[in-house]
Amino acid sequence: MKKSSPKKTKSILDPLISIIMGSDSDLKVMREAAQILDSAQVPYEIKIVSAHRTPQEMQKFALQAPTRGIRIIIAGAGGAAHLPGMVASLTSLPVIGVPIQVGNLEGLDALLSIAQMPRGVPVATMAVDNATNAGLMAIRILALQTPSLQHWLKKYRDGQKLKVRRANEALDPS
Amino acid sequence: MKKSSPKKTKSILDPLISIIMGSDSDLKVMREAAQILDSAQVPYEIKIVSAHRTPQEMQKFALQAPTRGIRIIIAGAGGAAHLPGMVASLTSLPVIGVPIQVGNLEGLDALLSIAQMPRGVPVATMAVDNATNAGLMAIRILALQTPSLQHWLKKYRDGQKLKVRRANEALDPS
Amino acid sequence: MKKSSPKKTKSILDPLISIIMGSDSDLKVMREAAQILDSAQVPYEIKIVSAHRTPQEMQKFALQAPTRGIRIIIAGAGGAAHLPGMVASLTSLPVIGVPIQVGNLEGLDALLSIAQMPRGVPVATMAVDNATNAGLMAIRILALQTPSLQHWLKKYRDGQKLKVRRANEALDPS
Amino acid sequence: MKKSSPKKTKSILDPLISIIMGSDSDLKVMREAAQILDSAQVPYEIKIVSAHRTPQEMQKFALQAPTRGIRIIIAGAGGAAHLPGMVASLTSLPVIGVPIQVGNLEGLDALLSIAQMPRGVPVATMAVDNATNAGLMAIRILALQTPSLQHWLKKYRDGQKLKVRRANEALDPS
Amino acid sequence: MKKSSPKKTKSILDPLISIIMGSDSDLKVMREAAQILDSAQVPYEIKIVSAHRTPQEMQKFALQAPTRGIRIIIAGAGGAAHLPGMVASLTSLPVIGVPIQVGNLEGLDALLSIAQMPRGVPVATMAVDNATNAGLMAIRILALQTPSLQHWLKKYRDGQKLKVRRANEALDPS
Amino acid sequence: MKKSSPKKTKSILDPLISIIMGSDSDLKVMREAAQILDSAQVPYEIKIVSAHRTPQEMQKFALQAPTRGIRIIIAGAGGAAHLPGMVASLTSLPVIGVPIQVGNLEGLDALLSIAQMPRGVPVATMAVDNATNAGLMAIRILALQTPSLQHWLKKYRDGQKLKVRRANEALDPS
Amino acid sequence: MKKSSPKKTKSILDPLISIIMGSDSDLKVMREAAQILDSAQVPYEIKIVSAHRTPQEMQKFALQAPTRGIRIIIAGAGGAAHLPGMVASLTSLPVIGVPIQVGNLEGLDALLSIAQMPRGVPVATMAVDNATNAGLMAIRILALQTPSLQHWLKKYRDGQKLKVRRANEALDPS
Amino acid sequence: MKKSSPKKTKSILDPLISIIMGSDSDLKVMREAAQILDSAQVPYEIKIVSAHRTPQEMQKFALQAPTRGIRIIIAGAGGAAHLPGMVASLTSLPVIGVPIQVGNLEGLDALLSIAQMPRGVPVATMAVDNATNAGLMAIRILALQTPSLQHWLKKYRDGQKLKVRRANEALDPS
Repeated sequence: MKKSSPKKTKSILDPLISIIMGSDSDLKVMREAAQILDSAQVPYEIKIVSAHRTPQEMQKFALQAPTRGIRIIIAGAGGAAHLPGMVASLTSLPVIGVPIQVGNLEGLDALLSIAQMPRGVPVATMAVDNATNAGLMAIRILALQTPSLQHWLKKYRDGQKLKVRRANEALDPS
Repeated sequence: MKKSSPKKTKSILDPLISIIMGSDSDLKVMREAAQILDSAQVPYEIKIVSAHRTPQEMQKFALQAPTRGIRIIIAGAGGAAHLPGMVASLTSLPVIGVPIQVGNLEGLDALLSIAQMPRGVPVATMAVDNATNAGLMAIRILALQTPSLQHWLKKYRDGQKLKVRRANEALDPS
Repeated sequence: MKKSSPKKTKSILDPLISIIMGSDSDLKVMREAAQILDSAQVPYEIKIVSAHRTPQEMQKFALQAPTRGIRIIIAGAGGAAHLPGMVASLTSLPVIGVPIQVGNLEGLDALLSIAQMPRGVPVATMAVDNATNAGLMAIRILALQTPSLQHWLKKYRDGQKLKVRRANEALDPS
Repeated sequence: MKKSSPKKTKSILDPLISIIMGSDSDLKVMREAAQILDSAQVPYEIKIVSAHRTPQEMQKFALQAPTRGIRIIIAGAGGAAHLPGMVASLTSLPVIGVPIQVGNLEGLDALLSIAQMPRGVPVATMAVDNATNAGLMAIRILALQTPSLQHWLKKYRDGQKLKVRRANEALDPS
Repeated sequence: MKKSSPKKTKSILDPLISIIMGSDSDLKVMREAAQILDSAQVPYEIKIVSAHRTPQEMQKFALQAPTRGIRIIIAGAGGAAHLPGMVASLTSLPVIGVPIQVGNLEGLDALLSIAQMPRGVPVATMAVDNATNAGLMAIRILALQTPSLQHWLKKYRDGQKLKVRRANEALDPS
Repeated sequence: MKKSSPKKTKSILDPLISIIMGSDSDLKVMREAAQILDSAQVPYEIKIVSAHRTPQEMQKFALQAPTRGIRIIIAGAGGAAHLPGMVASLTSLPVIGVPIQVGNLEGLDALLSIAQMPRGVPVATMAVDNATNAGLMAIRILALQTPSLQHWLKKYRDGQKLKVRRANEALDPS
Repeated sequence: MKKSSPKKTKSILDPLISIIMGSDSDLKVMREAAQILDSAQVPYEIKIVSAHRTPQEMQKFALQAPTRGIRIIIAGAGGAAHLPGMVASLTSLPVIGVPIQVGNLEGLDALLSIAQMPRGVPVATMAVDNATNAGLMAIRILALQTPSLQHWLKKYRDGQKLKVRRANEALDPS
Repeated sequence: MKKSSPKKTKSILDPLISIIMGSDSDLKVMREAAQILDSAQVPYEIKIVSAHRTPQEMQKFALQAPTRGIRIIIAGAGGAAHLPGMVASLTSLPVIGVPIQVGNLEGLDALLSIAQMPRGVPVATMAVDNATNAGLMAIRILALQTPSLQHWLKKYRDGQKLKVRRANEALDPS
């Protein structure tokens, strides 16, 4: 998945966010993070980095991310979901974890595997399958030093309010 | 609880982090976040802000936090833990949530009440009762623009490695 | 959704019950509450009020509800379901919460987020996705001062008994 | 347990609330409901009524409660907690259920046994072991027709706010 | 559902087993119990008896069952599944409970509502949705005094062995 | 543990019930079953039979139990609790299973390991750690052909009612 | 199911691995183990061996497996999954257990029934429905004494890495 | 912890088993594995290797283990337990995982984090806190090529049977 083609100008910029996941089957969930970042015009990259299938590449990725200019890592994983925690153990960058439901157990396995990190290595855990919020959390963090993103967040939240108002009007057209 | 007294100089600075919790009984857990911030010399405040007992004060707190210079909010709560998510809905600052075990159900109620936020309002959820990681996540975020905190994080992680090495030596003194 | 059109006379009355929910996608569950109230001819309103997307409107709603003549609030929410508890913290009216299953985890997240309220702020929690019972609980409460509703409840319960008897006759026509 | 002796005047009044539970071992939890009602001066009774050991007495109790002037029933039970639901099936009065943890499983068995009622018979479920909220919910319901209780609720909620403010002052005496 | 028509002779006999359930929608699960009893030629009846919708009829049913010659009661229920436990509290006959999955929570609510009975009132709980085993348990009990049922059980178990052997042959036809 | 010594006459009779468990550490739970049988004067035996440590002795036990006059087997086990199900697969006698909490997971592992038996092999599952009910279920079954046990059950249930009445009187001595 | 027909030469060899399961309906899951062993050219057999329907055949199977040259047993089972643990109690061979989801409860029942074995009888538990890993674990064990399998494992893991690389290239063709 | 001192001769041998864990606080659980290996005279080593605090040392450890003569790795971890799975992703040796309960959630987090590995990387998961079985599983694997260990296992299992027999005799001394 290239960074969304209609917004070509963005691809010129170095990515600030790295969206990683263990398998391309996770793309259907993690794509939401990219869409949010696209709409906020935050440059990002998407990569398959598997804690279990490519542990050494994962290590290289995590160690090099800061020098490549990556500021925040969004990592999605399912089942015994080790990717977010392992990347967090290899870097000092903020890591946001997205538990993904695969197969049985309703995603509870991934949620606990990501959230229950021991003292010393934090992962910012999102709701199961909720990569949208991972993108939004990344934007909230970047917005601390980027006024234009503060503005975007305000507009985003205004948009949410508007949707509620419109839904109300649809309920009661009088 | 004042900001730890032996480090008076810190109290001169305006707090960057606000550590909030629903009740003073949560202090025994949330104190860990303060201790980590103390050791990284990040100025912070600690407040009791209850989503359920003082909802309007919570709203005031959340709306005013950015203008008071707060950059990140760490919110701890137990049971039907609404504080982190509600604060996150009222501000664009990054909010870090700490589920706290109270009474029955092993903290699962607080974990799900904080982690399972709907699309649009992210909360960075930590492990149950793990306020240390909330402090560390805040430091990772601030470190994106503060080289001295990057240095502190490196030293913290080196310290963790050292502890492992020492534990190994204690196992096998030969 | 207007109050059901064939019963126009009802819309003249001010609503006694407010049925609220975080999103119009919750309507498919919450509609059941409206249907029960319709059949008991209890005037009600339905609104989208989002704890997370419109927290200030939620506050306004909760604070003004008593002055608008609302007696009972029925609030449905899924995931980290904060709406019922937050509304209950802002009003002294009885609040009935309906956990709604969204996505994973079988509704357990919503059930715990609504039921596990701390001491001081009660929410009357119903079964997952069971808005019918929320409507019935509201009617039981109003019936304390409304003999006609006591009569309706008796008839409703008689109707339930009749259904069981008919189902038995269908089993054994002899 | 008699109705609290220092408030003798109250015992002259007929009880409006019936607090029932399956066993006297549940008293340590259910007493909290009585204490809240005491403090609001709502007359109540406390009884042991066991769905499993005295099912016929339970039926008699439920059928006669309205004629004795009972307005609301608060029922506590643990394990396979049938008391609240069964009483609710035998009366049209509002029934508030309190899941009580007994033995294993952290009270999850009682919570599900009380909350997951089928369509037609509502029980207002509280948090595990939280009889305080059962008392408060009863007061919220009675307050719909009792201005003095509305006043009491306002004062109770003010008291809660005060406690938060005091806890904050204890944190930061400056 | 009449007792299966091709075995008319059986209907002449008074039922020994009563299969009850809260709603005709449970028939798709509970029918399995009837099929097993049919194949063992044990006379039975099937009734809708609802703990929640017809509590007084349930009481009458439970109190009269022994005098009608019923020896064992098989009760299926879902959600907050009170029927098996309530019937067991009203009779000294053995009661076998079948948890039925309805809606969310994978049947865990029904399993805990039936299995976690307090000391004094036993219910023989089966697996979720497994009414076949309820029928078999009833036959095992009756077989204690009925040699022909011992014979049937032996044949049933031989049939199960045969199925395994045949499945093995299908795997490896050589 | 011998059959309780003060009731020597009982030991002359051949046991009708076999109470088995995987380890002598389970005695503290399973003893309750013996106490109930003692009080009903039902002759029983207690044995350690381990599905995992003595699988062949378990098989021998299960195959020979009927010829030794055993009518019902009560089997207690914890963790991956295989004893009740395996014994049930080796005999046509009714088997009652008691899940025992050992170590973590609140007994949920034992409950599911015993209750979730596949079609064909029923186990009458009791509540976690509730061996009293296993004894009572055995008595209910034997009572089908033993009028004196029907009488005992009636008295036992009367005794339970009496306890509830006494607990009520203790609450309200007036 | 014969050992996969296109690889006839393999069938000449005595099987080293025995893949067993309780029912032919488990084949859709357990077939994955066979496929992995096929691709590593490890000779195996597949059998239906039911702990519950054919307990004595299971015992015979387990006792004779070592003398037939079987080195490792892979056992799949669902629900109250006793097969892996019972076989492990009857042999000293390594036993690998595969929990299979059947019906409700998301496979949690099978996972706990297999994993929570008591001290003394180990079962190597795999993820729910993950028979591929059972095959791979068997190969890892055999590879300890079989250099060609070490080579196969290396190639298998290289293949996994390659898939990740290819998935990455598909994401970003530039 | 040195390898147990009274058995000095063993320390001359190179370890075949590596027992690793994330923290020395896990020793109280993992020591059981060492004790079993001691009693079977299997040479082993014990190390603190933390997936989260020393991820690079963990990688080095895993990559070098085979060349150091390690045949099997036993890895214990709690919470978001990544150590067993990560080591398994870095080596082709068999890895045995021991979930350890730390803090809340009864060890369910560790169990799921270890057991629910994705296709491609197997971990042989043991029961929560059951390091004894990890040692026994390692011995079963080594015994495939070591007749003396087959003998030890036979004696160990005989010892287990003896304990059951003795426990039975203690129950019934006649």
